[in-house]
Amino acid sequence: MLKSDYEGQTCSIAKTLELVGERWTLLVIRDVFNGRRRFDQMQRSLGVARNVLSNRLQRLVGQGILERRIYQERPPRYEYFLTEKGLDLWPTMVAMLEFGDRHLAEEEGPPLVLRHKHCGGRINGRGICERCDQVLTARDAHAEAGPGMAAATGAHRAGHAD
Amino acid sequence: MLKSDYEGQTCSIAKTLELVGERWTLLVIRDVFNGRRRFDQMQRSLGVARNVLSNRLQRLVGQGILERRIYQERPPRYEYFLTEKGLDLWPTMVAMLEFGDRHLAEEEGPPLVLRHKHCGGRINGRGICERCDQVLTARDAHAEAGPGMAAATGAHRAGHAD
Repeated sequence: MLKSDYEGQTCSIAKTLELVGERWTLLVIRDVFNGRRRFDQMQRSLGVARNVLSNRLQRLVGQGILERRIYQERPPRYEYFLTEKGLDLWPTMVAMLEFGDRHLAEEEGPPLVLRHKHCGGRINGRGICERCDQVLTARDAHAEAGPGMAAATGAHRAGHAD
Repeated sequence: MLKSDYEGQTCSIAKTLELVGERWTLLVIRDVFNGRRRFDQMQRSLGVARNVLSNRLQRLVGQGILERRIYQERPPRYEYFLTEKGLDLWPTMVAMLEFGDRHLAEEEGPPLVLRHKHCGGRINGRGICERCDQVLTARDAHAEAGPGMAAATGAHRAGHAD
């Protein structure tokens, strides 16, 4: 068993941090939330070394956050899905998304916008739909590219053109 | 300037993680939320090396999350307060608290319970009062020890008696 990161802390925040505070782990979970279920999709999205990604996926499966299902037999290939426990990380991600949008994003605006599948309303940092006021869960939400994403992609393209 | 932890990620979650994902940082913020404003109080609460705590406080002041105010002149001693930006981390902490309580806490129950100052209702993982349904902010909340804290303190005492 791994040593606790925050020994002596009787604290649910510290325990959650031990899980999501590890480098790359929360971004792997974000990718699965956004429908990137396969190793190569995540590896491209994150630009992380294959052994690091493989280690993170293995730990997340071990912790009951992700489960894997085989989609190809030879060679065996897997897709990753969030368990109920994993889906419960959605409010944490949504709160971090809003903080980053408000205080740390580029001036072009948020790279990602969350919308309520049912009514199309924008979802705020509490996971509440700003149009219909419902308190939502991960299953009610979909993500779309925001103005900050277009700007970053444009800048990236401009960079390549130089 | 520090190198970005997640280079190439156009993502507000990644940016927030760069801030709160650093070891001990979010627990320093938690302590200030809970009224531990002085270096020695935090150092006792966290059990962390003084140079590490000093480094974290300095960075949090630099990032505009905390501000310090002098409370003693000779030698100079400071208390730390959350800025408006720092207070905006409350929904992230509350979401992580609930996840930890639900999935990672000991069976005795949550170590910490958040209550709405105004009506005494319990605050859930969205920062909503379960009694009066109001969406709250950091200023509306106070924390009290829950059953998990009593159990941990009891166990600690029993350990010392051996």
